[in-house]
Amino acid sequence: MSLLVVGSVALDSIETPTHSRERILGGSATYFAYSASFFTPVRLVGVVGEDFPDEHVVLLRGRNIDTAGLHVVKGGKTFFWKGKYQPNMNDRETLEVELNVFGDFRPQLPESFRQSDFLFLANGSPVTQMSVLEQAIDPQLIVADTMDLWIREQHSELMALLKRVDGLVMNDSEARLLTNDENLVAAGHKILKLGPRFVVIKKGEHGAMFFSAHETYVLPAYPTQRVVDPTGAGDSFAGGMMGYLASQGNFEPKTLKEAMAYGILVASYTVEDFSLDRLQNIGRADLDSRLVQFRKMLSF
Amino acid sequence: MSLLVVGSVALDSIETPTHSRERILGGSATYFAYSASFFTPVRLVGVVGEDFPDEHVVLLRGRNIDTAGLHVVKGGKTFFWKGKYQPNMNDRETLEVELNVFGDFRPQLPESFRQSDFLFLANGSPVTQMSVLEQAIDPQLIVADTMDLWIREQHSELMALLKRVDGLVMNDSEARLLTNDENLVAAGHKILKLGPRFVVIKKGEHGAMFFSAHETYVLPAYPTQRVVDPTGAGDSFAGGMMGYLASQGNFEPKTLKEAMAYGILVASYTVEDFSLDRLQNIGRADLDSRLVQFRKMLSF
Repeated sequence: MSLLVVGSVALDSIETPTHSRERILGGSATYFAYSASFFTPVRLVGVVGEDFPDEHVVLLRGRNIDTAGLHVVKGGKTFFWKGKYQPNMNDRETLEVELNVFGDFRPQLPESFRQSDFLFLANGSPVTQMSVLEQAIDPQLIVADTMDLWIREQHSELMALLKRVDGLVMNDSEARLLTNDENLVAAGHKILKLGPRFVVIKKGEHGAMFFSAHETYVLPAYPTQRVVDPTGAGDSFAGGMMGYLASQGNFEPKTLKEAMAYGILVASYTVEDFSLDRLQNIGRADLDSRLVQFRKMLSF
Repeated sequence: MSLLVVGSVALDSIETPTHSRERILGGSATYFAYSASFFTPVRLVGVVGEDFPDEHVVLLRGRNIDTAGLHVVKGGKTFFWKGKYQPNMNDRETLEVELNVFGDFRPQLPESFRQSDFLFLANGSPVTQMSVLEQAIDPQLIVADTMDLWIREQHSELMALLKRVDGLVMNDSEARLLTNDENLVAAGHKILKLGPRFVVIKKGEHGAMFFSAHETYVLPAYPTQRVVDPTGAGDSFAGGMMGYLASQGNFEPKTLKEAMAYGILVASYTVEDFSLDRLQNIGRADLDSRLVQFRKMLSF
């Protein structure tokens, strides 16, 4: 099945307690697409400025990621984010944001992308996300991410979007904010009433939970000692999950659960280095071998 | 195998965002013993005052908990704790503590208890915990709990204790404090170097992690919507785990992993009501049926 992602492509400067890196490849659509590409070809829609290094585009294309939807704005500058992680590597502070060309992002799906089976609307304004849906022809599965900003400031637009999506992926704090419920199990079930047929709540280092009308799964994160940079873990999770689903061509409960496990495992590699550096050094076989360990760890 | 627990028996007053209860049965040894009693008989060593209601002793005895080691101090008052939970039901504030007879607790093992196969040293000063070890004859498995107070204030005594125990059970924040490492996987491995052959890190609503030289397990908490009072969840976890181990008579990796799952499941019931109220309404069959669901939830 074809898989389309619409989201940000960025340059990030990142400080962790022990390292720092300047203007490295980042963005939700980037992490998503690269992670999904372990399982299936990906179509990417995003926007960058003229300052966006060619090598990044080459890297994505080399992974069977179709960049026909990556719009380069002449004279424009790429979305830039600078952040600093606290010693716990979980909490982070935004030091600088320059939206640049992403501020005016009005995604246009290339004609060849409009008929995509699986759609992932990475974090963005619900209005922008809805505009993508309006360009898509007969998608089979629509999954969206969102964040606190939209929950607070574009609530009714978000509610309208939720009625149109099959799945919602979000952080624990965002699920609590959206539902005003501190209990994540209760929050998950409340979100189902807003429209989506399933919801995945990401808990960072604590894994993820899945809720649908009849199924509840909860998986821990894969335990890794080497957490170098957590940036992009959530988008990698979503990419691994959606990529695996697209490769299987269905979203049956059994497939969804496996997809969630693969999402967790891709993310566990993502955090082991900056940007896509760790992912560039692994292959599908590494994911499969970590899957065997993960399954063993969880079976009793 | 015989199982002995030494720890606090208390009366708790608890406020949650929606309910409050006065002077209900609590304490680490209480939660531990009751939880373990689903799997095996338990020997309890603790201290209470004359104000301790008889019905609580009757309740424990009715569960095959031997209270020969429960010392009643004439004219004394029982350890009292009053706490208040924040809306997230995870963070809590201590409003009052009266150590009372627990302040002078010098555990004396009844002669009939000295030869116990499995020992659990619930949270207490490492000096007190060590004094129990000195009275025990040839225990096969010694597991201890500890807390931030002892890590900070009786560090060398705690280090001496760690060289004598087989297993250590503690909270995530305490593991970070003890090792000065924010990464729990790294922290777990550092703790192994201090003496214990295995360490279990409890993460509250996020489950628990297990580390030994060759094994790492990580299990999420069982997802429950009904969190009424989290008090005693950690001790229930330890009780379920140790009770199951004692019932199996070994601590092989496979048994330890099952024991961890049972610990998580007993704790998932404990939090569904105040004190031991929920546990009094379930039986081993409920635990086994939740185990089937938990296993299904985690298999992919």
